[in-house]
Amino acid sequence: MNVIKQSAQPTETVIEKMHEHEQIVFCNDPSTGLKAIIAIHNTILGPALGGCRMRPYRTMDEALEDVLRLSKGMTYKCAAADVDFGGGKAVIIGDPATDKTPALFRAFGQFVDSLNGRFYTGTDMGTSIDDFIHASKETNCIVGIPEAYGGGGDSSVPTALGVIYGLKATNKVAFGTEDLSGKTYIIQGLGKVGYKVAEQLLEAGADLYVSDINKGAVKAIQERAKQLGCIARLISQDEVYSVKADVFVPCAFGGIINDETIEQLKVKAVVGSANNQLLLEKHGEVLKQKGILYAPDYIVNAGGLIQVADELYNYNKERVLTKTRSIYTSLLEVYKQAELDSITTIQAANRLCEKRMEDRKKQNSFFTHTKRPKWDIRK
Amino acid sequence: MNVIKQSAQPTETVIEKMHEHEQIVFCNDPSTGLKAIIAIHNTILGPALGGCRMRPYRTMDEALEDVLRLSKGMTYKCAAADVDFGGGKAVIIGDPATDKTPALFRAFGQFVDSLNGRFYTGTDMGTSIDDFIHASKETNCIVGIPEAYGGGGDSSVPTALGVIYGLKATNKVAFGTEDLSGKTYIIQGLGKVGYKVAEQLLEAGADLYVSDINKGAVKAIQERAKQLGCIARLISQDEVYSVKADVFVPCAFGGIINDETIEQLKVKAVVGSANNQLLLEKHGEVLKQKGILYAPDYIVNAGGLIQVADELYNYNKERVLTKTRSIYTSLLEVYKQAELDSITTIQAANRLCEKRMEDRKKQNSFFTHTKRPKWDIRK
Repeated sequence: MNVIKQSAQPTETVIEKMHEHEQIVFCNDPSTGLKAIIAIHNTILGPALGGCRMRPYRTMDEALEDVLRLSKGMTYKCAAADVDFGGGKAVIIGDPATDKTPALFRAFGQFVDSLNGRFYTGTDMGTSIDDFIHASKETNCIVGIPEAYGGGGDSSVPTALGVIYGLKATNKVAFGTEDLSGKTYIIQGLGKVGYKVAEQLLEAGADLYVSDINKGAVKAIQERAKQLGCIARLISQDEVYSVKADVFVPCAFGGIINDETIEQLKVKAVVGSANNQLLLEKHGEVLKQKGILYAPDYIVNAGGLIQVADELYNYNKERVLTKTRSIYTSLLEVYKQAELDSITTIQAANRLCEKRMEDRKKQNSFFTHTKRPKWDIRK
Repeated sequence: MNVIKQSAQPTETVIEKMHEHEQIVFCNDPSTGLKAIIAIHNTILGPALGGCRMRPYRTMDEALEDVLRLSKGMTYKCAAADVDFGGGKAVIIGDPATDKTPALFRAFGQFVDSLNGRFYTGTDMGTSIDDFIHASKETNCIVGIPEAYGGGGDSSVPTALGVIYGLKATNKVAFGTEDLSGKTYIIQGLGKVGYKVAEQLLEAGADLYVSDINKGAVKAIQERAKQLGCIARLISQDEVYSVKADVFVPCAFGGIINDETIEQLKVKAVVGSANNQLLLEKHGEVLKQKGILYAPDYIVNAGGLIQVADELYNYNKERVLTKTRSIYTSLLEVYKQAELDSITTIQAANRLCEKRMEDRKKQNSFFTHTKRPKWDIRK
């Protein structure tokens, strides 16, 4: 995925930056102070889906760049996960600490509703489930809400499961067996997802290096390791990149695969839930040259997406977990194609997504009742 | 109406310029070359309604300024005409002479459809009814299409009728009688609307000065005058502003009431169908000081709008003409209020519109079945 380029002429911001995006919606509601941008990158596979960030962007250009880049990422993530959604994203310009009100999120919900099912959204950086309970009173295009409200609740369970299945597929290619046991993994971040991944690896009989500033989480995972007769050794934030192990499992920050860290890595593979792990696309190439197998992040961490997408079909937990397990086969397909075409795994993943969209285009041209001409139903 | 101000920082274009606008939608369809902006200024009174221009804008900023200014104008025009629509407008960036294709207008129709009835549109400068027949195949939110397609067809009939009723109301205030006869009118422009106005004035027993570069139209109106025993004297484009008459009826260009022309005017009133007759709002004040009664253009020329708005209720010609005749009472109300508050007629018209929106806001807060919470109908 290319990052959207800055145009030389700032005046020409919007349309010039919409190389591939279908639609960008600027939303303004003075009465609640809402200022937001909704970007719809691509709807070949279905309505656009993507979270809503809230950040005190310093400039509108910064907000626009962010929403354009992130919505494009969602197109690929949805295609890879094989959910019937396209890529979209929203950003609210404001400080999450001081600018949130129920009315602001209701107003946002009205704008989402105005797109009448072309865009579905939910929480992202700076926004919480509570915010979207307010928004959901104005539109039924909100996903990721609690189970009591008809949603799937916490999506860290399927996300962690996806990482586990990503690890199995990667081990199969890197070590000849999908078995998770008997290997050492470096877990960066013991948050909701990282902790669950660490626990399941321990349960499978693996040893861990763990790194997190949250002492409670570290203590908990070390106790769990002791119970299971495995090792979970605490390492510093810097050691994460240099310690010798089998697999590096980044579950915290983006951009952690960069010129500086790649030099230090002494692992055979990188498989984790963090978003945008490669600082630049070229770092996928560098990993390849070093013989480190890289599991494209957006394929591995799609469990949460699979869950929220399922809400549109009346969320079923078992169905979500089944689909999440298919990350295993998707990833094997990507590894095989990368090998065949001598390209990086991220390039192979992108091609897979683009092929899925090309294939779907043909099906989209098959006429059915729901696609009849609009003038026919004018009355 | 204030013109939207240019922001000092071009980088901050969109949201900073959206002082009052609800929503701005940037549309991009590389496969057809469509680049368009839809602006929704205000939907207090109903879904936004406004035509779609096509112009080879030199910069995106120019296109954005145009669509913001015009959509705000539509809010006032709709409020004044008392149609249940808010203000919107669309611009397509391209050259009408070379860039039009059926596919481009179909793509535009899809974007209009994506707003699901929040925006209705039709022809404007640079676009034709044929273009919107293509668009109407993708959305039922197109108005102003031919009668054979369920529309009202040519809207110059109600527009001209509105001017006639505007003249009657103005004559009542300026001359003490709504009678159109026995007076001299200067008709600037003998296009579709101007010609019909001229003809009806002659039929009412008025004398005319007419100005148009279309010799055929001039000849036709002069023959009609002869038949009716009246006078239609051809004057040059410059003489239009300086000839002595009772009423100046601009039916061609915008901005024709400016510092230069006001000095020359020797009439008692200005009533016409041209859009944006005042170059600046202050020129309304100058007319007032000179004792020239000015009929706000957007009230007088609303007949066409009344017709296209009626299409949403299954167009009925008689209903359109009845509503158009009410321009008479609206204009009398504006004149009365301007007198009472010692303000210009354009200020009085704007206040009338703003009051209508304030009043409607209260009704919009009355709960009915169609406004029930969205989460209630999630299934």
